[in-house]
Amino acid sequence: MIVIGIAGGSGAGKTTVARSVADQLGLENVSYLSQDWYYADHTHLPLDEREKLNMDHPNAFDNQLLINHLGELRQGKSIEVPDYNFIEHSRKRETTLMAPKSVVILEGILILAIPEVRAVLDFKVFVDADADIRLIRRLERDIKERGRTYDSTIKRYLSTVRPMHEAFVEPSKRYADIIVPRGGDNNIAISMLADLVEHYAVHKQGENNHSEK
Amino acid sequence: MIVIGIAGGSGAGKTTVARSVADQLGLENVSYLSQDWYYADHTHLPLDEREKLNMDHPNAFDNQLLINHLGELRQGKSIEVPDYNFIEHSRKRETTLMAPKSVVILEGILILAIPEVRAVLDFKVFVDADADIRLIRRLERDIKERGRTYDSTIKRYLSTVRPMHEAFVEPSKRYADIIVPRGGDNNIAISMLADLVEHYAVHKQGENNHSEK
Repeated sequence: MIVIGIAGGSGAGKTTVARSVADQLGLENVSYLSQDWYYADHTHLPLDEREKLNMDHPNAFDNQLLINHLGELRQGKSIEVPDYNFIEHSRKRETTLMAPKSVVILEGILILAIPEVRAVLDFKVFVDADADIRLIRRLERDIKERGRTYDSTIKRYLSTVRPMHEAFVEPSKRYADIIVPRGGDNNIAISMLADLVEHYAVHKQGENNHSEK
Repeated sequence: MIVIGIAGGSGAGKTTVARSVADQLGLENVSYLSQDWYYADHTHLPLDEREKLNMDHPNAFDNQLLINHLGELRQGKSIEVPDYNFIEHSRKRETTLMAPKSVVILEGILILAIPEVRAVLDFKVFVDADADIRLIRRLERDIKERGRTYDSTIKRYLSTVRPMHEAFVEPSKRYADIIVPRGGDNNIAISMLADLVEHYAVHKQGENNHSEK
């Protein structure tokens, strides 16, 4: 099994890159994980305090659970993937059973910024895009898809998204094995990544078969 | 045949990346070209004017000759590769015969900055490194390997290398399909690039064979 980490700022297009690579590989071959599903549970806090949480900080996540799950997939075990309720800022009770596959794609803004998570990735990708393009994507998503106001989106962007990007996301770029410019629009890089992962997955599978003989 | 372009600033490690990829593919499969060999001939100028030439500008190269050569290799023809005398700032009389291979690796600081050259590349790579690291490599090469003084190296760096990097090399990064951080030290990216090029060369070779049936 190989674990591919796909990081990048909010609005950079990392989900597009990650899902396109997964689609090209065939969903039957890929365990797809989002760091967003691994936000730490905050049900012990009052709701008004939960709403003030800084969701763009490395400490907002249950990193140990994510690392345990990657280890279990690597051992060929199935995992119970958590999910997160962004309105109540709590972990959902329901989990999703995920079987181990030959490739794990893990995507998330901060996966290269957390040393313990970074350490368990076989191949590290950073999806890059200019700050203005990222802001436009964030505005369109928050206003059109999530029904937030322009003012609340800009306020959140300036108060946490942007400072956390500067403090944690952007500096984590230097840990990448490769950087994908122009985010989700970079079809050559997406296709290349999928071909490469396929090559490694098949190659590694071949090596495993060989060693079992 | 596929043409891989490997660009990046002076001292970024692009030659290390390009040569490592070529080595891994096997030199019998690779036509290796350096943009440095395609500097325009300046024998018509007096030597003191030649020494003032800005060698870090896109117009310093005989871009048409390079494009013609890539076209001839693509048609399965051999080419007469030029060479450049950096002391006399003139093209050498001797050329080297180069046979067409399944992969062309073209490396040079400005290959992504020249639209006509960029247009004939199948896959565009930019090798990146921090400015201070690039300066250290440049100092070590110019002082230790080329016998220049510290003062002349810094003068040249500040007067042409750095401004041309800012004006042409750095902006050309956005045309890359992928960016390789940490230059020649990034063994994972080097190995990955070689595997990928091999995959495409074999794949394309297979397609060609198929279409000939």
